[in-house]
Amino acid sequence: MSNPQILRFFIVFAVVLVNPAFSLDNGLALTPPMGWLTWQRFRCETDCANHPNECINESLIKSMADQMASKGYLEAGYEYIIVDDCWASKERDMHGRLQGDLERFPSGMKALADYVHEKGLKFGIYGDYGNFTCGGYPGSLQYLETDAMTWADWGVDYLKLDGCYVELEGIDQGYGMMTKFLNQTGRPIVFSCSFPAYVGIKANLSAAVEYCNLWRNYGDISDTFEDVKDIADWFGDNQKQLMPFAGPGHWNDPDMLLIGNFGLSLEQSKHQMTIWAILAAPLIMSVDLRAISDESADILQHPKLIRINQDPLGIQGELVKIDNEIHIWQRIIQGNNPDNTCKALAFASYRTDGTIYQYNFKVSEFLKYNGSFVIQNIWRKSEMKKSSDETITARIPPSGVELFIVCPLNE
Amino acid sequence: MSNPQILRFFIVFAVVLVNPAFSLDNGLALTPPMGWLTWQRFRCETDCANHPNECINESLIKSMADQMASKGYLEAGYEYIIVDDCWASKERDMHGRLQGDLERFPSGMKALADYVHEKGLKFGIYGDYGNFTCGGYPGSLQYLETDAMTWADWGVDYLKLDGCYVELEGIDQGYGMMTKFLNQTGRPIVFSCSFPAYVGIKANLSAAVEYCNLWRNYGDISDTFEDVKDIADWFGDNQKQLMPFAGPGHWNDPDMLLIGNFGLSLEQSKHQMTIWAILAAPLIMSVDLRAISDESADILQHPKLIRINQDPLGIQGELVKIDNEIHIWQRIIQGNNPDNTCKALAFASYRTDGTIYQYNFKVSEFLKYNGSFVIQNIWRKSEMKKSSDETITARIPPSGVELFIVCPLNE
Repeated sequence: MSNPQILRFFIVFAVVLVNPAFSLDNGLALTPPMGWLTWQRFRCETDCANHPNECINESLIKSMADQMASKGYLEAGYEYIIVDDCWASKERDMHGRLQGDLERFPSGMKALADYVHEKGLKFGIYGDYGNFTCGGYPGSLQYLETDAMTWADWGVDYLKLDGCYVELEGIDQGYGMMTKFLNQTGRPIVFSCSFPAYVGIKANLSAAVEYCNLWRNYGDISDTFEDVKDIADWFGDNQKQLMPFAGPGHWNDPDMLLIGNFGLSLEQSKHQMTIWAILAAPLIMSVDLRAISDESADILQHPKLIRINQDPLGIQGELVKIDNEIHIWQRIIQGNNPDNTCKALAFASYRTDGTIYQYNFKVSEFLKYNGSFVIQNIWRKSEMKKSSDETITARIPPSGVELFIVCPLNE
Repeated sequence: MSNPQILRFFIVFAVVLVNPAFSLDNGLALTPPMGWLTWQRFRCETDCANHPNECINESLIKSMADQMASKGYLEAGYEYIIVDDCWASKERDMHGRLQGDLERFPSGMKALADYVHEKGLKFGIYGDYGNFTCGGYPGSLQYLETDAMTWADWGVDYLKLDGCYVELEGIDQGYGMMTKFLNQTGRPIVFSCSFPAYVGIKANLSAAVEYCNLWRNYGDISDTFEDVKDIADWFGDNQKQLMPFAGPGHWNDPDMLLIGNFGLSLEQSKHQMTIWAILAAPLIMSVDLRAISDESADILQHPKLIRINQDPLGIQGELVKIDNEIHIWQRIIQGNNPDNTCKALAFASYRTDGTIYQYNFKVSEFLKYNGSFVIQNIWRKSEMKKSSDETITARIPPSGVELFIVCPLNE
């Protein structure tokens, strides 16, 4: 067992000893979940009269499901389509159950889930552990069991449970109650928890591992490259606390992919995709799939990036060096032969001068093994055989990235 | 005369009274200069062995000239191709004259100017008023007359004179000496001065108007949207001091266009192009024209944006309102009938949420005239006839822009 694996073993072991009753046993998310979610692109737009194509309603979700199924996203691995806040009616029904807004979801949420399932996709929904959702819709605090059953009845496959309007004291155990009720439904539902993001870096991530398949750790992303940098920096600064808790079935979540929206250049889009792959981050798109450019779609569907992200070992990567505003990240991934490991090595630039920066390195700086290597440049699509003491050159545009996979050659 | 015209008249009048001897009388830059310059994209890259396609040498300049002449840039109005710092030999020749680096410009600078002229373009060069250029190459301080004559001999049409390695005290009058020597050559040379950027907002812009065709006012731009915002904010904050000094023959210069490089999304590229058009800014590209995307080239060559930028009235636009992170700029431009004026009206977003922001306005908020108007949406290519009290909707993506031209209808 490698060190991260040993650590993970002990964490899971400890968690099981402390509280076996409520632990999440859904067997899901063995690799980071991949999907699409309304929030970053469509937020809480409910004015369908003035924004007929951009408001949160059943037609928006159906059209995104159509795009996901027909434009290669599902095939690439994006399977969940998740309705974030502002889908619900402000009033529960006569039985105290949540219901979709009657005007915007006239066919009902179950019919929408059915539509999504018919496309071969899985259906996700948003709730809030507190008294209200962040947008002011009904929260689940007095209704955890009812809401778990309602969502299971609709055929929900993924629940994002937010943390607005609730006391932070004991919030982790509160999410554990929801875990218990989700388990009781018998339906496998990926559980995305928000409490670590509300509690901050001192959040009880052992509880998160126990109760959740993934959890947001940090603030909401916005449509700017600065936020990509800010989030990547935060994950780098706190990696010692975060990395041990990531692994098959339970993941740190740095928030949505911005790719295809308005704020990132193509180089910056590759940059986000690369860091999210290294971080073993859930890949949750939030973009108008009806309007996305081919270049952005290619980045989101890049098979080698998705392969790194979905690596079965599930070891979260780490920031290993900062040199002249180049941030160097690495992640251990499985090789072609299950007994071998390879390394994904990313050079992420925060330089702002206009020239391409040339960074020279030797594989021996990052890998102890001293033989020959095959090194692939993933974005530039080149491949070379090199010995560990030969110089490799990364050519990194300002705010861009270079990504290599280094695999030892068996000689 | 409108107010800006009156103000300009008095400034020119005052300037002529104070110091008639050295004033720039080249009759150039009646609209903001348009061209291409090495700096933002290629900086001071002199390592041609490792960067054969990206170092400052004659082949780079020739290939950019080829692109400018053959790919529509010259036709669109971009006529100057300007070599920024790091072109010179570290040693002057035996006659004390500047010379190009002997390895990187083996044919000499005159031959390069000839090549550029044969393409129908104009040739620009960089010097420094102080002892050294910012990159450490020879400065002009003891050689103003010699260097003016050398550049004129080579066929230089545009001089960017930087301000590194010099005392700031009296720097404006020093630039005036160079103006005198440029005049003495008899060659029409657009003169781009840097001293206002070194002195700051208290710089003597009356001297700039007297001696220079354009001048940098603020720090160097870098390849980020934050810099576009920072520069736009600075020009908005200081517009009362800056606007009176802009006009035919003399322009405030917010620095190069980043469009086509690595740091701006397409929406952000439209944003920069729009604000630069409103500001009557020199349009100086700095991008690898061999590698630019069609979308970026279309933004740089957009005829209606260039039309606004090059408006013959030469009135610098202004920031008139900030509302919910939407910055509203306007510029008075000439109408189809020379007796009429129209207004360019830009809505620039610094919002970072992912949704498109809907901004409703009435033309009467921005124009006193109360009749009917033709209003064109320039980026979306639509046109409507509206009365001044009808509501118009701008739909502005985060970090994007909407741009309208409003022309009164003669009824």
